[in-house]
Amino acid sequence: MTITKADIEALDRQDPLRGHVAAFHRPDGLIYLNGNSLGQAPQAAIARASKVASGEWAEMLVTGWNRAGWWDLPRRLGDLLAGLVGAAPGELVVADGTSLNLHKVVATALAMQPDRRTIVMAGSDFPTDVYVVQGLIAQLGQGHTIRFAEADALDAALAPDVAVVILSDVHFKTARILDMAAITARAHAAGALIVWDLCHSAGAIPVDLNRSKADFAVGCTYKYLNGGPGSPGFLFAAARHHARMQQPLTGWWGHAEPFAFQRDFQPASGISRMLCGTQPILSMAVAEAGIALALSAGADAARAKSQALGALFLALLAEQLPQSGLLLSSPADASQRGGHVALDHPHGLAIMQALIAAGVVGDFRAPCTLRFGFSPLPLRYADIREAVARLATVMRDKVWQDSRYARRDAVT
Amino acid sequence: MTITKADIEALDRQDPLRGHVAAFHRPDGLIYLNGNSLGQAPQAAIARASKVASGEWAEMLVTGWNRAGWWDLPRRLGDLLAGLVGAAPGELVVADGTSLNLHKVVATALAMQPDRRTIVMAGSDFPTDVYVVQGLIAQLGQGHTIRFAEADALDAALAPDVAVVILSDVHFKTARILDMAAITARAHAAGALIVWDLCHSAGAIPVDLNRSKADFAVGCTYKYLNGGPGSPGFLFAAARHHARMQQPLTGWWGHAEPFAFQRDFQPASGISRMLCGTQPILSMAVAEAGIALALSAGADAARAKSQALGALFLALLAEQLPQSGLLLSSPADASQRGGHVALDHPHGLAIMQALIAAGVVGDFRAPCTLRFGFSPLPLRYADIREAVARLATVMRDKVWQDSRYARRDAVT
Repeated sequence: MTITKADIEALDRQDPLRGHVAAFHRPDGLIYLNGNSLGQAPQAAIARASKVASGEWAEMLVTGWNRAGWWDLPRRLGDLLAGLVGAAPGELVVADGTSLNLHKVVATALAMQPDRRTIVMAGSDFPTDVYVVQGLIAQLGQGHTIRFAEADALDAALAPDVAVVILSDVHFKTARILDMAAITARAHAAGALIVWDLCHSAGAIPVDLNRSKADFAVGCTYKYLNGGPGSPGFLFAAARHHARMQQPLTGWWGHAEPFAFQRDFQPASGISRMLCGTQPILSMAVAEAGIALALSAGADAARAKSQALGALFLALLAEQLPQSGLLLSSPADASQRGGHVALDHPHGLAIMQALIAAGVVGDFRAPCTLRFGFSPLPLRYADIREAVARLATVMRDKVWQDSRYARRDAVT
Repeated sequence: MTITKADIEALDRQDPLRGHVAAFHRPDGLIYLNGNSLGQAPQAAIARASKVASGEWAEMLVTGWNRAGWWDLPRRLGDLLAGLVGAAPGELVVADGTSLNLHKVVATALAMQPDRRTIVMAGSDFPTDVYVVQGLIAQLGQGHTIRFAEADALDAALAPDVAVVILSDVHFKTARILDMAAITARAHAAGALIVWDLCHSAGAIPVDLNRSKADFAVGCTYKYLNGGPGSPGFLFAAARHHARMQQPLTGWWGHAEPFAFQRDFQPASGISRMLCGTQPILSMAVAEAGIALALSAGADAARAKSQALGALFLALLAEQLPQSGLLLSSPADASQRGGHVALDHPHGLAIMQALIAAGVVGDFRAPCTLRFGFSPLPLRYADIREAVARLATVMRDKVWQDSRYARRDAVT
């Protein structure tokens, strides 16, 4: 049964998140299926950038730290975001970047497990997580090693020497969703702590850190949370660990009395001890708009729409390009798939370049994966229809075989 | 001889940096003598904040990483800033914050000095530097200790066990300037490496890192470089150390091939290996305006004007308030003083609160120090005249004795 234009118009009319669609800026003629890399700009974020620069910095100057609430942004945005990922107020801060936050929580977890020397990670996860751990263990010089194990082989890897397990709950390439609660329970049964990387889940799928009994988590705000390019990361630490946790990136924002200017470091109580130094206020203040939109939409509604957008994309693709040669490398079961869909093709790079030239932005991950992100807040169902139409043209007319598309043009 | 209003108007007319004054936003009625804490907003920075949000992020989306040059910002701004502080292109990056950068370079320096376990620091320097080192050595667990020694007692502290010396070339409280070249030579003669904290010098006084043979340096861009609240820090590493240096905060931005998505970390060559993760682009892009203004002014012209502003402030104060009770705790010799002047008074906190209420913003550092910053680019000589007039009123009329001024209101 063919999906008609009228069917799709009806989906947009009935979309409970259509108000959120209108809250985003839409570049003319562009279909943006890359919110899994860098989210689109909320109108409120654009306005906020101007306001922070001209109304806060320029006018309030140093008094903005209090009057504009800059000083409290890491905790205030953290409490806001906590409500989206199943954390309690005081368990999450928005600060620094994902990599630095990962360094902090893994160092903390290793210090809590002095008799264990193994870190379990999936070698296929986004590489920076491995880079962070490799730098950390080289510095520690205590003989820690990484045991690489994909999620399916986790049980065999969970020996009694495992101090901590680090996993992404949504895989950056395939979008496969892991069962956070079940895996956390298995790690705990083996005496290990667990760190979840939520970069590809926060804002895309419901996450419940405390119900899953997660120990620590990190993530970014610039993908499905639409915080802006390089907007700050976040860090979750379960309250039960706060009294014991000690992280190495100490600085005055993590001090018990930052304005006492004491000579020696004394960690703040609670999540604040996970802070280090002065934060980039423009980037951080602007990120609030996207976080607030995600909260007002609700994780369940966002997930339902993202799944529907992805399903529509695959259905239209099957209908219009039954012999496309694009192979689904994401889970076929939509309930096992996060916010994007991965399609493999031996000429994936050229195809994505040609598609971008045709005004549909997805991205490419070596060696052969095209990623299409279905960010639920800014996208319309009509966008999906148009994207598939353009992709069909690129494939049918073999536009991608043009030599100018055999190059690399986009980051993350 | 009385300094007249006409004298001061002449100074502004003849100011070679009067064009730079006009490049800054001026809040109505406010005299801002706190650019040593948070610099004022260049008009170009305000415009840039809007442009990055609405013209780059919102329109270019992920393609902004290349098309808007976001990916190269740490190196590009680093090369720009290098020209102001006597570094060569490729020796400096703008990224992360001062504290994190200090962690990186001290960890690097300690790894280069495996047989030495002592870090020499001035206990009176800005406390976060100590906090950073305390967190680092706790993590290393190799028995490193800090030997606290003020600059005047450095020689006695420079025993053969000293791995690294960390000093601020301009003291955050007194503004005293240290002789970077001479102290570096003494540290090197003792076999130690040296890390300079330039937070209070970059943009205020001429700094020549390579002529001084500095090993490493860090600093911020939000004070005299007018980069915006919490704008990124910077990190300098002398080229002679690049091949050997290894820092623990590894991440994909410091990888030799960040887009190859290799599983294992391989450090980039050169200064790029000092990068870690994705940077806050809004804050970083906006910081360029202030850095560019400092470069176009030139460090010598900026220093000459800052000194002249400070000298005028002290001369007017002596003239109008000979019995003020405000005691100069900065060096009396202007050539030994950085960009601000410190005045001590037992009721310093209340006086500063009353002065801020009168529209003159300086700041206070416990227990008794008022700081007045003479940021050379945004300030006019007429501002100094007006500031002293208001300060004289606050002191003469004992405005500060009002009970509402016995509280704390400003950060940093």
